[in-house]
Amino acid sequence: MRVDAFLGGRLRIAQPATGYRAGIDAVLLAAAVPAGAGERVLELGCGAGVASLCLGARVPGLVQTGVELQEGYAALARRNAAANGIALEVVTADLCALPDGLRSRAFDHVLANPPYFQRARGSAAADPGREVALGEATPLSLWIEIAARRLLPGGRLTMIQRAERLPDMLAALGHRLGSAEVLPLAPRAGRMAKLVLLRARKGGRAPFRLHAPLVLHDGDRHEVDGDDYTPALTAVLREGRAISWPT
Amino acid sequence: MRVDAFLGGRLRIAQPATGYRAGIDAVLLAAAVPAGAGERVLELGCGAGVASLCLGARVPGLVQTGVELQEGYAALARRNAAANGIALEVVTADLCALPDGLRSRAFDHVLANPPYFQRARGSAAADPGREVALGEATPLSLWIEIAARRLLPGGRLTMIQRAERLPDMLAALGHRLGSAEVLPLAPRAGRMAKLVLLRARKGGRAPFRLHAPLVLHDGDRHEVDGDDYTPALTAVLREGRAISWPT
Repeated sequence: MRVDAFLGGRLRIAQPATGYRAGIDAVLLAAAVPAGAGERVLELGCGAGVASLCLGARVPGLVQTGVELQEGYAALARRNAAANGIALEVVTADLCALPDGLRSRAFDHVLANPPYFQRARGSAAADPGREVALGEATPLSLWIEIAARRLLPGGRLTMIQRAERLPDMLAALGHRLGSAEVLPLAPRAGRMAKLVLLRARKGGRAPFRLHAPLVLHDGDRHEVDGDDYTPALTAVLREGRAISWPT
Repeated sequence: MRVDAFLGGRLRIAQPATGYRAGIDAVLLAAAVPAGAGERVLELGCGAGVASLCLGARVPGLVQTGVELQEGYAALARRNAAANGIALEVVTADLCALPDGLRSRAFDHVLANPPYFQRARGSAAADPGREVALGEATPLSLWIEIAARRLLPGGRLTMIQRAERLPDMLAALGHRLGSAEVLPLAPRAGRMAKLVLLRARKGGRAPFRLHAPLVLHDGDRHEVDGDDYTPALTAVLREGRAISWPT
């Protein structure tokens, strides 16, 4: 086990030293959720709780729930929430078989950082916890379907995922989720997006929007010591600021 | 009727003075087609021929065919091809009912600039020729389906369309067209994409790619006299250069 600092040290989160550990993707996901005080928030696949805890650190007064399949990560998320003084209910469950207590509730926001790799296409990770977190045992389309079911009318889905899965994500929105918008995340200016943030609204009818990319790093390549994040990214990662989506 | 200059005056193309007239979208579409000498190219909905003739002006030795529903535009395309000394066979036909002579042929490239507005969602244009060119009588998904049928294995589809239709376009690629890549076209740096160029390959299996946007205009807003295109755009529009897609 090791303890990682997030949001400039405001959060200290225990994660397994080996196996799956959340990184900046979880922080970016939290920063992209347009939640306000008092709203109900559900994270699908919350792992050790990094995204939910980053969101709770930014927006006070949320009512937050996380679902996690692996009991070890769920226990860690509960402990991390307590250690950071952020209220987070963690339910150990398979997304595809949510307990009645969750299936009877609806949320203003659902967020998710689904596994990045399709199991059928790659080899499994050696660490079993890492494999469940990274391998796509539950299809991406099902994550979105389950999110749609748990959203209130007008509620918002926010996801982060590899850019190459964008067609699958958009297809999975179906007729229930609309007003979709994509914020490409480009490692450097002028580079192809590696990741995308996707937002959609249950019952939304606004046209799809493809925003200008959010650039993560300054310069053409990694040249300086340190992480060379752009000032906007530094504000998100170190000061816990929200990502400002174009309106 | 009026005559518009394209590619810095290299092409002179007659178009109706009122009604639908092709603009830079057709030039960008042509500049995005990765065709080489000797290849067979089909344009769906070629109108007065602007995209096909721009492509023919850039790449010598193509075997080009255009399909156009409206006889007036088809006749104009034939005349424009002859006047510019570029070989272009123009077939007057409904995309959904291509003649046997076309249905028995396959192409290395299909390009299309399908109508931008869904008829069900807006009011019809007053000019009937303009209405057919702009209104979506044939669903966008059917344009892509018909393109897929006419492509050789490994052949490439290139389209330009409003960014808000990207989810529909990606969904329509289905299992036949893969290796899709999107080049967002942003009016200015940092702005949302208004249009997208989409390329896909019949039978392609490479992951989807979302490229960095191609920026059309310099500066934050329209400030100077003239069109303030970026140098890269000027090379495409005035010198007839290809758009260089990232590899």
